[in-house]
Amino acid sequence: MDGKYVYNFHEGGRDMAGLLGGKGANLAEMARMGLPVPPGFTVTTEACRVFLATGEPPPELERQVSEHLAVMERAAGRRLGQVDAPLLVSVRSGARFSMPGMMETILDIGLNDLSVLGLAKALGRERFAWDSYRRLVQMFGSTVMGVDSARFESVLAGIKKQHHADDDTQLDTCDLIRLVQMYQDLILEETGEAFPQDPAEQLRRATLAVFTSWNGERARIYRRREHIADDLGTAVNIQAMVFGNLGPDSGSGVAFTRDPATGQPGIYGDYLPNAQGEDVVAGIRDTVPLQELEHLDPASFARLRDCMAQLEAHYRDLCDIEFTIERATLWMLQTRVGKRTSQAAFAIAGQLVDEGLITPQEGLARVDGEGLARLMFPRFDSSGTREVLARGIPASPGAAVGAVVFDSAEAVRRSAEGEKVVLVRQETTPDDLPGMIAAEAVLTSRGGKTSHAAVVARGMGKVCVCGAGELTVDPQGRSFSTPSVTVREGDVVSVDGSEGLVFLGAVPLVDSPVMRYFEDGGHPPGESATQVVRDVHRVMGQADEARRMEVRANADTPEDAARARRFGAQGIGLCRTEHMFLGDRRSLVEAMILAHDDEEREAALNALLPLQRADFIGILEAMDGLPVTIRLLDPPLHEFLPDLTELSVRVARDEALGRQPDLHETELLAAVTRMHEANPMLGLRGVRLGLVVPGLVAMQVRAVAEAVVARKRAGGDPQAEIMVPLVDAVEEFRLVRAEVARVLERVSAGTGVALGCPVGTMIELPRAALTAGSIAEDAEFFSLGTNDLTQTTWGFSRDDVEAAFFSAYLDKGIFQTSPFETIDREGVGRLVEIAVAEGRATRPGLNIGVCGEHGGDPQSVHFFHDTGLDYVSCSPFRVPVARLEAGRAALRATEAQAGR
Amino acid sequence: MDGKYVYNFHEGGRDMAGLLGGKGANLAEMARMGLPVPPGFTVTTEACRVFLATGEPPPELERQVSEHLAVMERAAGRRLGQVDAPLLVSVRSGARFSMPGMMETILDIGLNDLSVLGLAKALGRERFAWDSYRRLVQMFGSTVMGVDSARFESVLAGIKKQHHADDDTQLDTCDLIRLVQMYQDLILEETGEAFPQDPAEQLRRATLAVFTSWNGERARIYRRREHIADDLGTAVNIQAMVFGNLGPDSGSGVAFTRDPATGQPGIYGDYLPNAQGEDVVAGIRDTVPLQELEHLDPASFARLRDCMAQLEAHYRDLCDIEFTIERATLWMLQTRVGKRTSQAAFAIAGQLVDEGLITPQEGLARVDGEGLARLMFPRFDSSGTREVLARGIPASPGAAVGAVVFDSAEAVRRSAEGEKVVLVRQETTPDDLPGMIAAEAVLTSRGGKTSHAAVVARGMGKVCVCGAGELTVDPQGRSFSTPSVTVREGDVVSVDGSEGLVFLGAVPLVDSPVMRYFEDGGHPPGESATQVVRDVHRVMGQADEARRMEVRANADTPEDAARARRFGAQGIGLCRTEHMFLGDRRSLVEAMILAHDDEEREAALNALLPLQRADFIGILEAMDGLPVTIRLLDPPLHEFLPDLTELSVRVARDEALGRQPDLHETELLAAVTRMHEANPMLGLRGVRLGLVVPGLVAMQVRAVAEAVVARKRAGGDPQAEIMVPLVDAVEEFRLVRAEVARVLERVSAGTGVALGCPVGTMIELPRAALTAGSIAEDAEFFSLGTNDLTQTTWGFSRDDVEAAFFSAYLDKGIFQTSPFETIDREGVGRLVEIAVAEGRATRPGLNIGVCGEHGGDPQSVHFFHDTGLDYVSCSPFRVPVARLEAGRAALRATEAQAGR
Repeated sequence: MDGKYVYNFHEGGRDMAGLLGGKGANLAEMARMGLPVPPGFTVTTEACRVFLATGEPPPELERQVSEHLAVMERAAGRRLGQVDAPLLVSVRSGARFSMPGMMETILDIGLNDLSVLGLAKALGRERFAWDSYRRLVQMFGSTVMGVDSARFESVLAGIKKQHHADDDTQLDTCDLIRLVQMYQDLILEETGEAFPQDPAEQLRRATLAVFTSWNGERARIYRRREHIADDLGTAVNIQAMVFGNLGPDSGSGVAFTRDPATGQPGIYGDYLPNAQGEDVVAGIRDTVPLQELEHLDPASFARLRDCMAQLEAHYRDLCDIEFTIERATLWMLQTRVGKRTSQAAFAIAGQLVDEGLITPQEGLARVDGEGLARLMFPRFDSSGTREVLARGIPASPGAAVGAVVFDSAEAVRRSAEGEKVVLVRQETTPDDLPGMIAAEAVLTSRGGKTSHAAVVARGMGKVCVCGAGELTVDPQGRSFSTPSVTVREGDVVSVDGSEGLVFLGAVPLVDSPVMRYFEDGGHPPGESATQVVRDVHRVMGQADEARRMEVRANADTPEDAARARRFGAQGIGLCRTEHMFLGDRRSLVEAMILAHDDEEREAALNALLPLQRADFIGILEAMDGLPVTIRLLDPPLHEFLPDLTELSVRVARDEALGRQPDLHETELLAAVTRMHEANPMLGLRGVRLGLVVPGLVAMQVRAVAEAVVARKRAGGDPQAEIMVPLVDAVEEFRLVRAEVARVLERVSAGTGVALGCPVGTMIELPRAALTAGSIAEDAEFFSLGTNDLTQTTWGFSRDDVEAAFFSAYLDKGIFQTSPFETIDREGVGRLVEIAVAEGRATRPGLNIGVCGEHGGDPQSVHFFHDTGLDYVSCSPFRVPVARLEAGRAALRATEAQAGR
Repeated sequence: MDGKYVYNFHEGGRDMAGLLGGKGANLAEMARMGLPVPPGFTVTTEACRVFLATGEPPPELERQVSEHLAVMERAAGRRLGQVDAPLLVSVRSGARFSMPGMMETILDIGLNDLSVLGLAKALGRERFAWDSYRRLVQMFGSTVMGVDSARFESVLAGIKKQHHADDDTQLDTCDLIRLVQMYQDLILEETGEAFPQDPAEQLRRATLAVFTSWNGERARIYRRREHIADDLGTAVNIQAMVFGNLGPDSGSGVAFTRDPATGQPGIYGDYLPNAQGEDVVAGIRDTVPLQELEHLDPASFARLRDCMAQLEAHYRDLCDIEFTIERATLWMLQTRVGKRTSQAAFAIAGQLVDEGLITPQEGLARVDGEGLARLMFPRFDSSGTREVLARGIPASPGAAVGAVVFDSAEAVRRSAEGEKVVLVRQETTPDDLPGMIAAEAVLTSRGGKTSHAAVVARGMGKVCVCGAGELTVDPQGRSFSTPSVTVREGDVVSVDGSEGLVFLGAVPLVDSPVMRYFEDGGHPPGESATQVVRDVHRVMGQADEARRMEVRANADTPEDAARARRFGAQGIGLCRTEHMFLGDRRSLVEAMILAHDDEEREAALNALLPLQRADFIGILEAMDGLPVTIRLLDPPLHEFLPDLTELSVRVARDEALGRQPDLHETELLAAVTRMHEANPMLGLRGVRLGLVVPGLVAMQVRAVAEAVVARKRAGGDPQAEIMVPLVDAVEEFRLVRAEVARVLERVSAGTGVALGCPVGTMIELPRAALTAGSIAEDAEFFSLGTNDLTQTTWGFSRDDVEAAFFSAYLDKGIFQTSPFETIDREGVGRLVEIAVAEGRATRPGLNIGVCGEHGGDPQSVHFFHDTGLDYVSCSPFRVPVARLEAGRAALRATEAQAGR
């Protein structure tokens, strides 16, 4: 509504979080439900945006606030600043997305030199009233009027020193009255104006101070890290104060409608008698389990239980609640849908479906792939005693145990000797890369989720806890210490990257039952199955039913193929033949590369042929009846040769020492030097190899064709597809396809077995995407190679830049997530859309999948669903994640279409 | 017209080359002009396409050919196969684009066992008639009926042996009669059918044989190399035979209406009395200058001169003519617009404008940038005596003199000692790359314009002659030989890459007068100027007047800037600051890179600052009043450090020999190892460096700003623009632009001088092009870096792949030209179009130029004009080429719009 900047709680609702902020929307929802919410109203984010843009609040705001205040005063039966029994209000920020502690809050607005006396009289608590007034002047003075809060602290410290008082509670009412006066003097001295006695002015200025805090440094940094837009603004909630600290019949607490750790139904929470909500959160005093409230105040407990049941039924989800009891009266101060562990998410989704609160489709929407992935990691055994050394940010999930090391070289050294190590650093830099590769886990004392350590560890799939601020790392002394313990190099620690915990010693690992369930083939769980497995099984069934996209796996060995199939893969989307060129076959590959003539090369290729054929037979057998997309050799040949620098150094050393030159090494060095490429990623690889190295394509295709024949003769149903990598232009594809066709025909003619192998191409270079319309004239399927496509579209290679500057880029807000993790929709995604649209325009119904790592990334899977892909292919372990997310994506798209 | 497959010469015209082929269209044009063309008609390419698609000629074709034949017979007064005086016809291919010698021709159709007698009687030449018949049977038997031509040759050889005859002319009529019989027997034996006696059948089958020859192997290879589409098909010209070999009053010749070498007006050509046209082309007998025809047959000569004048006036261009005189009657057999040298092109364009035959705009269209570039190279002095060693394909223009070497290592060795060398190989491979870099010129005995040597040499701008087939190269013997001379390693040769000639010894070089003209500033030539300079000056004026795009230069030094300005550059489109980091400044750059802390780094940057500032002052002075676009540092920092392998070898060698480790080297090696990138092209460079290395951008911008201040204080008009390289996302640009703005403000505030430096970006990555709409929100100009854009769009780096597989790709028809030479319109060009359209949609009127090497490539310049760019920027030497082509492009676009 234009020009309406203030909403009474009874006017709002939870679907208005954009306008009222999350807190305001939920307060309004509770008020509308008839729950006991202290009266109040919300100033909209729109008003904040006007203020931020123009430096002035909207002109209508003051009048609208007055009108709503009057309504509130009527409801409360008291007026703001009323001398005999003043209404006090809190002024709290409340943005659309939670930004805990990042903006300002001002309590006890309405107190002044007169109303403080009225409050004291009304509550019968003089000291309480003056303490509240003291806090208001301090808070207002620093937050609104800009006096350095250290100045207030030093005045307070002076008074305490006079009284030899250790803490505030030892000050009496007289001290507090003096303190208020001294604070007011301080404000006048520092700012040239007096602390405002007019409650309306207090309210007005506090509101604007909350607006202003949206652009405070803390808030801006937080938003950048959490990727919250800068132009949303915050709402301001103005609400009658209630007091949990008026005696033993008062108190504050937090509650959950189910156990957020396991999902178990029931009432969970903490209660702190005779305290304000802030004290519960601050954790200064020890809380009691919420259940004890039943004995302390059975009526309020019963009332709270009712409210919680009502909220859960209403929100149809786990709710997280803050409440205060003021002299045996329950007040609800906040609610929201509660955070939970992955296990709880699956459990709650199942329970709510069973209870009829939500549909199975909604249940599916309540879980996600990252949560499923977390359930698949092994975890530390929580049954034994574990000494928590430190807490940090859970930056890269999983659990790892190892000996502590403090530099990269030591990590590499010990790891080379077979020892498992945990690299501990204040923060990591690109120089630490070898050590990170060598370590089981990385632990840092500084930096957040976008720090170098976090970004690189996630990229590598290493366990990482970062920003463990309690640690003091001393690399010179080869130790780190917590306030209680010192850990030296070689001591063993356990790092839980899912929870952000570090334990002393080796904590035993327990396998994930969810992983075991998938490893066993995802069959319906029996009686003895754990609850989480039952929950996961149910959700997987719903996801498989809902999804349109197929899920395939990237697998290069029969073992991986078999695992992928157990995990639910519907074929292999990418079988990399280069992995078959490694190991003990290196010498054959080397012979092929070093061949002096066609004859030598052919001999080497002929030796490789039966090995490749046997590989293919194994994989086709493991995937019998399902498609197996076999990619022709992709990497530059020099990858199969030794590194130029290492070899040069070896040869030079031999020469310097006057050793007889090793002829093979000399020849090898000549070949490596000749084939050295400044930028191998942009070099002679993929289809280019196939077009330049005689016989290579023919050998590989022949191996595939003969494997198909062998499988057919053995009664199998092999479904091989041949994929040409790194195509730029349809002409390249045409030439290779012609050769593929010739070989297939030859094998077919020679064996009398029909071979229906579709021949398709990777779309992994911008030019291929831009000319997909032509390429589709000849290609029978597309597979989007979004790893390479990301590298070339952005012009950076993962190996080179991830460690060097991704954390800086995430920090500066250039990336929201690494484009190698989640597909970049504007750039790479646009090329994907062009390739899909123009490929299908040429060849309607063209089968298109994706085989980059994005195939296993939840957000990317949703994008691929929306783009109309036929399948995603990912590593075997990510297959369940992709199945789940493909189901969720289909559901979300259907709902979006239905306009829900 | 639907269903019309045959055109009488009088029905066609030169604008119908698509339907009638080039030869047919021009024959028709001459017939319509009333020139003496032997009667005939053309079967269309459309008929050929039907035949190629269905395997059958269109059903209407036979009837239409009969009708046109009847018309022709009436015109000739004789009938095909007429027993007493047969009409003979030729059946010749004629495609839209000339494919000389690639398809079939069948002459003397109409002869059979009876009509051969009639022909003998009619001409009074029995032997001639039988020889013609013998040729027909042989040609028809092999071409149409598929008998291996070697079989005919061996029959002929047998007869010759019997008569101890060395050549055909020694065979008498009886022998020829026997030969015809033996040939006919051979055909019957080989094919099971007799040589057709029915002239109509001969004609029909000959026509289809020409159609079929379109898809012959030779023709297909030729088309692929020349990039002629496979689906055009050929027309077939059926024309009454005329004979130039009926005695001394007969003959054949070729003629040009102006000198194709210099453009001089007059009659140029060669004449061969008593010969057919084929004999002139074959070069078996020595021709006489055409002028001698005036004495031999004054009437025919006068007639020919009239025809040539008529043709030139009609075609309004140099014409190239073939004619035959049959018993003192002139017949025109072919004409077309003639090929010419670059010098002649400029001269003729000027003359025709002066003669009023063409407009100045048409004159401009008749010359081109590559021709201009050729005129700018120095040439060998043609006045002295020069011994032509060999002729080959002019693969990369220019003239070079050097000592012959036969391998890469020797080339490198001698060149390192300061000797100029010419690398001679049978053909080159990637292994020859170092030698090619070291050599002045490359000469090969094998391979064409798309061979490895040709492609790589063109890419490097090296002189190259390839495919010099007369050479026998003996690398082991370190010599090469021609039939007459042997040249040994170290002997000096001169290589003319523009003409494809190799001379023995050092031929003196003469400077290009055209180059001198540009070097002198392109002022109006004086009295003493050579004609070619006057011609060029006139054309440059027309081009500058016509063009819409500006032309800037890529220049990094004051000297280059000054030269570019003399060559007509209207500013600097790309000033690479990295070139200012080389030479004796390396140690400062090294100090910056190796800095242990901010202080050391700042000290190094501060030392670089005055040097950079002085560079900029010099360049801004040279380009005073014109824009100078300065690009911030682009390449990865490790490019300024030693090579990893070399350094590792050095350190390893020292270690092995027990030498004291050089501390600096050890530190350097650590830095080089740390900064080593697997793919530097895709690494930490461009804007990424600016965002990661503190102080770098600030130092560079400060140097620019202070240079502007210095120039302004000196009374100059500096127009500096700051360009950010390698931007992927608007967020990167925004961060750098903010820093640039801060520095500019600081310098402006400190000096009191206003600094209006626009800040723009390179668009050189696919993602930048795809998100150009967002980037234009902040960037004040775009410069398309099409080198890098080509590398990333195609996913190959020029350094890595050009030598490795470009020649194979050109050979296989995957490329038409290297995408680094001429912009790839489908892929890279599409990104350019997106960037231009979406950039300008955000910021109307956005200034956009190109600074890749494509800026100096003629075809690319036309594309950039069409895409609406504001300017192209290229190397100083290409500025005249770009000016000329920008003018031509504007003209062509205007004409296309006017529908001309």
